[in-house]
Amino acid sequence: MTNAARIYLDNNATTRVVEEAVAAMLPLYTEEYGNPSSAHAFGAAAGKGMRAARKAMQGLIGAESEAEIIFTSGGTEANTTAIRSALAVQEGRREVIISTVEHPAILQLCDALEKYEGVKVQRIPVDAQGRLEIEAYRAALSDRVAVVSFMWANNETGVIFPVEGLAELAHEFGALFHTDAVQAAGKTPISVKGTAIDMLSLSAHKFHGPKGVGVLYLKKGVAFQPLLRGGKQERGRRAGTENAPAVTGAGVAAEIAAARLADDAPRIAALRDRLEAGILNTISHCTVLGAPRDRVPNTLCIAFDLVEGEGIVMKLDRAGIAASTGSACASGAVEPSHVVRAMGVPFTAAHGVVRFSISRFTTEDEIDRLLETLPAIVADLRALSPFWSENGPNLPGQMPAAQ
Amino acid sequence: MTNAARIYLDNNATTRVVEEAVAAMLPLYTEEYGNPSSAHAFGAAAGKGMRAARKAMQGLIGAESEAEIIFTSGGTEANTTAIRSALAVQEGRREVIISTVEHPAILQLCDALEKYEGVKVQRIPVDAQGRLEIEAYRAALSDRVAVVSFMWANNETGVIFPVEGLAELAHEFGALFHTDAVQAAGKTPISVKGTAIDMLSLSAHKFHGPKGVGVLYLKKGVAFQPLLRGGKQERGRRAGTENAPAVTGAGVAAEIAAARLADDAPRIAALRDRLEAGILNTISHCTVLGAPRDRVPNTLCIAFDLVEGEGIVMKLDRAGIAASTGSACASGAVEPSHVVRAMGVPFTAAHGVVRFSISRFTTEDEIDRLLETLPAIVADLRALSPFWSENGPNLPGQMPAAQ
Repeated sequence: MTNAARIYLDNNATTRVVEEAVAAMLPLYTEEYGNPSSAHAFGAAAGKGMRAARKAMQGLIGAESEAEIIFTSGGTEANTTAIRSALAVQEGRREVIISTVEHPAILQLCDALEKYEGVKVQRIPVDAQGRLEIEAYRAALSDRVAVVSFMWANNETGVIFPVEGLAELAHEFGALFHTDAVQAAGKTPISVKGTAIDMLSLSAHKFHGPKGVGVLYLKKGVAFQPLLRGGKQERGRRAGTENAPAVTGAGVAAEIAAARLADDAPRIAALRDRLEAGILNTISHCTVLGAPRDRVPNTLCIAFDLVEGEGIVMKLDRAGIAASTGSACASGAVEPSHVVRAMGVPFTAAHGVVRFSISRFTTEDEIDRLLETLPAIVADLRALSPFWSENGPNLPGQMPAAQ
Repeated sequence: MTNAARIYLDNNATTRVVEEAVAAMLPLYTEEYGNPSSAHAFGAAAGKGMRAARKAMQGLIGAESEAEIIFTSGGTEANTTAIRSALAVQEGRREVIISTVEHPAILQLCDALEKYEGVKVQRIPVDAQGRLEIEAYRAALSDRVAVVSFMWANNETGVIFPVEGLAELAHEFGALFHTDAVQAAGKTPISVKGTAIDMLSLSAHKFHGPKGVGVLYLKKGVAFQPLLRGGKQERGRRAGTENAPAVTGAGVAAEIAAARLADDAPRIAALRDRLEAGILNTISHCTVLGAPRDRVPNTLCIAFDLVEGEGIVMKLDRAGIAASTGSACASGAVEPSHVVRAMGVPFTAAHGVVRFSISRFTTEDEIDRLLETLPAIVADLRALSPFWSENGPNLPGQMPAAQ
């Protein structure tokens, strides 16, 4: 089966690059291939698309100035730069606050900061619907905190954190506020202007741009130390030859995402709701994860009792449908994801989590083909479980929550 | 003038991407656009080219195993990762040895390590021909040194350091050895197998691959700490969604570079020598910088007395020829580059440095067009100098060396 005949419902892992972006990139590989920092015609030609891209990113997140946009190699680099910079510019503050459901790029960095560099990390829990425990956050704040980093939208459940308000709380204690908006940009409106958000991370390949391009938004006036030093690129804030082709393509994708958001979001939400209702109507004993009203419109994270999510994903793949058990970064793991565990999903469901993530290229027909395919897959897998009977779960007793 | 009609002699800044690489990349944007870490057909398709690329990089540098190849976003990230890792894994060693002519990615990083993190940095000088002062290096070594980092070839002069021997000296004191081979790979044979080189950095866009792809070679068994943590990509050594399209293209470029090196190098050297002889024969008072026999074959760095290199580069650009005054990373600066200063080039010449860097796409006709154009440009500029007469320099007295 070719990919063209397949159905791609794993858009939170990565997305198809829009044709317009590829078209903008192509001449920069073989014709206008100069180094944007070079002082000749090849350099000048290569730099044009980057300037447009900076404006497009500014537009996508409602930044005040294009000078607030720093291009990086991706979301992981942007996140790492933000947290490390915040610690470096505030020597007297050696604490970081994050949530338990952040992306591994934040979690693993903070684990290392704690283990090797003496930084105190406070991890704020979420409730069963994936919403942040605000009181725990309030209690963790102090003037020892260098930076608070909460994601805008969760990559597995799509749950949105109220980052504007969370940022204001951080400022009350003089802490910087960073948000990983990798899963929010292009899916839900973002406007950082006038908020207390100091830094924000983006990844272009999550909104139909190329891989290898991220953005760190750095509010004007916020102190900063670069992660990568050397050349004067990005106003001395991120060294390394500018990736002119990919950044140019990312800019085109950002412009399209911003322009289409108002139309795309409700259409995508309708597809997601159709999928969600269809599954709940045809398959028993399954639970949607994440606060229903506080999710980005493209994500459906659903737990099927007494089956393995991996099994569903494999059988769907054989049927030509791409989905995920959680984040691609954590795939291969046999344990429930850290997000599922943080939400306290019951043991019987925690292993049966599947994430469907939709894009503007998803069609109603594709959703319906998934709905025709999925019930039999789940039934077949459940038939193999010793704890499943014709009447549903047949458990030996009370099962523990996932740890 | 279109770029196709222009002459590109700035290949040490960046290179044209080979068509074969672009062809390999294209399907990965819009068809096989999956995340290589995803457990479905889209992911599997995206991962294929990366495996081939890892083997190609292994081949290009003669590494023992493809597991020694870590893909990064470029040379700056590879260099930064290497130095920081070497310090992190050897807590008792807090010194670094570099040369005064390293790339800014190394120099600026080391300045910051010294300023903010208490690391002692020893900078080994070079002689007037750009060769490392070996005795100074010997004297700097001790069991306090965590890592020695010397570039394989200099980006401005092309001068090659004898890194295999330098690495063995480092090992005598138990220090790790890293080399920035960004300007050597694809230009001169590299084989790390059996050497004392522990780490090596590459950048694909310097050998006709796309921008945004670097390699950190990490010898098997060498302790390591990642710069970017998060997902399990690159065997847990470099987190972040794999840049499958660009890495795939970089692999194709590496394979071609390795396969063609034996043919390309002498042809490119002949073009460079033709250019060098032509300039020396037609323009008085100019000096080739860098040890004549110890240079990569594609680079000619030449100082014209009593003119501004910027002026030459600007006039060449108007004539459709792209060259550079030094590294693109340092362009825009009005002072002589750090490399020119480190070599003690006399003041009268230090401001008139121009770098011509050739690629396999350069033709004899292009070299001849440059040779027809350059003498008049230099003569016009010299006519403007108060220190230039029909008989040559007319200086008020002894001029100091550049500082």
